Amino acid sequence: MTEKHLRKATASEDNLIRIFTVPEAADSTLGRIERQLSADLAGFLQDNIAALEQPLSDIENHFCRVEVPPQPQFVSDYVEDIMSHLVAQSVHTAAPSFIGHMTSALPYFLLPLSKLMVGLNQNLVKIETSKAFTPMERQVLGMMHHLIYGRDTNFYQGFLHSASHALGAFCSGGTVANITALWIARNQLLKASGNFRGVTREGLHKALKHYGWDDLAILVSERGHYSLGKAADLLGIGRDNIISVAVDAHNKVDVEAMRMAAAELQARNIRVMAIVGVAGTTETGNVDPLAEMAALAKEIDCHFHVDAAWGGATLLSEKYRHLLGGIELADSVTIDAHKQMYVPMGAGMVLFKDPSFASAIEHHAEYILRQGSKDLGSQTLEGSRPGMAMLVHACLNIIGREGYEILINGSLERARFFAALIQAQADFELISEPELCLLTYRYVPVKVRQALAKAVANNDTEKLAAIGSLLDDLTRAIQKTQREQGKSFVSRTRITPKVYGNDKRTVFRVVLANPLTTEAILATVLEEQRALASGESDILRALDALC
Amino acid sequence: MTEKHLRKATASEDNLIRIFTVPEAADSTLGRIERQLSADLAGFLQDNIAALEQPLSDIENHFCRVEVPPQPQFVSDYVEDIMSHLVAQSVHTAAPSFIGHMTSALPYFLLPLSKLMVGLNQNLVKIETSKAFTPMERQVLGMMHHLIYGRDTNFYQGFLHSASHALGAFCSGGTVANITALWIARNQLLKASGNFRGVTREGLHKALKHYGWDDLAILVSERGHYSLGKAADLLGIGRDNIISVAVDAHNKVDVEAMRMAAAELQARNIRVMAIVGVAGTTETGNVDPLAEMAALAKEIDCHFHVDAAWGGATLLSEKYRHLLGGIELADSVTIDAHKQMYVPMGAGMVLFKDPSFASAIEHHAEYILRQGSKDLGSQTLEGSRPGMAMLVHACLNIIGREGYEILINGSLERARFFAALIQAQADFELISEPELCLLTYRYVPVKVRQALAKAVANNDTEKLAAIGSLLDDLTRAIQKTQREQGKSFVSRTRITPKVYGNDKRTVFRVVLANPLTTEAILATVLEEQRALASGESDILRALDALC
Repeated sequence: MTEKHLRKATASEDNLIRIFTVPEAADSTLGRIERQLSADLAGFLQDNIAALEQPLSDIENHFCRVEVPPQPQFVSDYVEDIMSHLVAQSVHTAAPSFIGHMTSALPYFLLPLSKLMVGLNQNLVKIETSKAFTPMERQVLGMMHHLIYGRDTNFYQGFLHSASHALGAFCSGGTVANITALWIARNQLLKASGNFRGVTREGLHKALKHYGWDDLAILVSERGHYSLGKAADLLGIGRDNIISVAVDAHNKVDVEAMRMAAAELQARNIRVMAIVGVAGTTETGNVDPLAEMAALAKEIDCHFHVDAAWGGATLLSEKYRHLLGGIELADSVTIDAHKQMYVPMGAGMVLFKDPSFASAIEHHAEYILRQGSKDLGSQTLEGSRPGMAMLVHACLNIIGREGYEILINGSLERARFFAALIQAQADFELISEPELCLLTYRYVPVKVRQALAKAVANNDTEKLAAIGSLLDDLTRAIQKTQREQGKSFVSRTRITPKVYGNDKRTVFRVVLANPLTTEAILATVLEEQRALASGESDILRALDALC
Repeated sequence: MTEKHLRKATASEDNLIRIFTVPEAADSTLGRIERQLSADLAGFLQDNIAALEQPLSDIENHFCRVEVPPQPQFVSDYVEDIMSHLVAQSVHTAAPSFIGHMTSALPYFLLPLSKLMVGLNQNLVKIETSKAFTPMERQVLGMMHHLIYGRDTNFYQGFLHSASHALGAFCSGGTVANITALWIARNQLLKASGNFRGVTREGLHKALKHYGWDDLAILVSERGHYSLGKAADLLGIGRDNIISVAVDAHNKVDVEAMRMAAAELQARNIRVMAIVGVAGTTETGNVDPLAEMAALAKEIDCHFHVDAAWGGATLLSEKYRHLLGGIELADSVTIDAHKQMYVPMGAGMVLFKDPSFASAIEHHAEYILRQGSKDLGSQTLEGSRPGMAMLVHACLNIIGREGYEILINGSLERARFFAALIQAQADFELISEPELCLLTYRYVPVKVRQALAKAVANNDTEKLAAIGSLLDDLTRAIQKTQREQGKSFVSRTRITPKVYGNDKRTVFRVVLANPLTTEAILATVLEEQRALASGESDILRALDALC
């Protein structure tokens, strides 16, 4: 029995006061971990996250006790436990070879700043628990607003810190941002009129009766994010009233098809409440024709929201911001700082063209959010929430426009390099070209590529489907094994490439936003996948039989 | 010109890679700050947060630039800037003399653990970016579920890690938790039947038409949290359909009045969708009669939600958990860990009695949240979100049941001490007794107290109103000056004390959850208020004239 087993953490008032007043010793387990995090984050993650994936059921076995432990535990014991069972089995989201998701390595300065933010423990719901954090957050929203809409000095002098206006809302992420935008759009459309006190007071059922519409609808590309369906559900509009509009060969919504869909809805007495443009679809990274969509929104008199949760950061690049042309015409825009702005998880924003827009959801309470106060909580979906805006503020100031220019251009150009690399391989096929820094592709043995080309030429849909289905199996198998081996990670999704008759096909998906991802790493990812493919002999044999 | 003005941060690819790869030097400004945070958080906050409040407009002047700074800034320069303009003007929420809000001092171990959490940067929306964090979060939800419902081993073995079940949902805070519960309740009530595909698909308008109801309603005490109005608005139910039910002299909802209100709604063909019990109102800290409410919910066949965002942590005390008796009968319960569980901002939870409950909002997407996956995002309102559950996990394990027992009992007993202290003063009046650890009171000069007592005895409503209005002014003035002087902080709210004919009156409000708040500090708070009152000569003169 070691000394560790002899000592025992005991709950006494003195001991408990100690956890609030006595810092962790520098030579404690947690002290050592913290020093390593500060000195070498990448090394820490590399050393402490296990390369080989443990089966989920084994991990679950360690997290199955539901009684709150009766006795206190020494911090060091707890930390040793989570180092082996939680940290070791977490995902190395910052690894330069993990190019399958939208997280990246983080700038070093964010670690101590996060600690400062947690230590200050401000609550942004009201001035009384956030003071300077409130104008700081408003400034961040103002900077993002300016980045999108670029209004003049007078505009920002008038509205940036106005108690009765909001240039946007800070929130935990893009989903809440999208919900907030559509919530306000719904309430603006179904506002008070005559005896009707507005949807906010009387609800959707009476609102539609008052306005004489049979239903509401929201139009979006078939590549729209699933959070829009969630928003439609939550807002009482219904998921079936998210009208999915077809995309062209470049995964951009067909605005003419959207116009026709809107006319058809109108003919059925269904009011189009909003159209949503996607600026960086999560599956292929493409941007909808935003200017054309803005024109359509004007034509049919509806709200125009742009979901730029992922792609919005591209506005920080002078060279590439034109790819989001037309975004300045949107009534509201979602941008996540925890995606391509290099901020840790939990930093979403929605920006409003019209600073009075959010008044449609304004609410007050007695002990906070008093009328005329500058409490941010009176115009947000969330209530109590942390000072995450400080980390966005830090990145915008420390990295600066010129810094982001280099980072974002680097990502887009890395994606173009990888696309070219894939196209140079005989046995890989680029499925969607990178418009921003996201692309999709798959592994297709040379012989199979020839058979596919022939089937397309002959319009042999049966053969296309048979080969496609086997390639789906192959893609899934490669992706799964590569992930489990833990050296690199690409994700997979299912899309409908035009060239293969719009059938739903499984493809690899990569996001090249990590500045530490080198060209050599990208070459290795392909080599690994080729090697893994050669191990799938059953699928390869079946494919052979079709060629 | 100092050296600092000569050097210039420049954006180059090399410099940018450095922010991702080279740690802050130990002797840098940020390095020094971090060491002080680690060595002496309380001292850091005391030293760096200015005692005297700067006018908000002055603070705003520092946060008014909206152009993203073109050039990068040295980390040290940035940090110096925010130390004087942001940190110095933030709120010392951890101060033992700041007893006006629901935040508290934090245990030390949470600082390095927060840094670890940020460094790992997991995204809980899906297993692929969270792995072990997913079962860890499920365990936290399981522990909270067990704390409320205490089901047997078989139950948890079956459901804790089941892909198609959820014992609860983790979220950014109590507002999202309450919205989630009511969203699911609405969808469960208006489920698919016959040709109708459910409110989730077809929306609220068609749902009400299908079921033949004119409207939905939610019943809650007049002390219910403003987030419920927000939920009703968002869900398309309408704020007017949150039916506010009167409370008794102890600020607990009158269940008989609620029963009558429900019957009346039913007679008007309005379906009561849910009743909401409050376990710890934000204004007076009282708990509704939960068991009686559960019986009513059964009687009228509706959902029973308990908002225990603030009070729920009391369940960790064997001695006082009986105060929340009946909570185990609730269909869903909201608890915020960032309130009385000593976790930093951003840790809300909602727990479900029935593990199938959340299926009413289940949603899937192609690249994540695939059917049958254990991706948490398929049953939450939020999408991408951080691994905050780890900090709750740490507190539950390190503090343990016995530790929380002492902390929570300490808070409740500190509130009882303060109530007695107030009652022992001739010139203070306790307005609401502490049931948990929240109470309200006000300063009333001795002569005025006598005049008030006489006015109550004579039922002289005119005099009561006149005195009451001046006391409101006095309370507001004391509270504002005390806050501005920065030594201590109590909050204020407006409630309707029965003893003064249910008129709305302004009162001081304190929350005694900080374990570092001593009895001596509480005595000082009263002395400060007494001294501040004596400075309000105009109001005192006007009061005198009424006595």
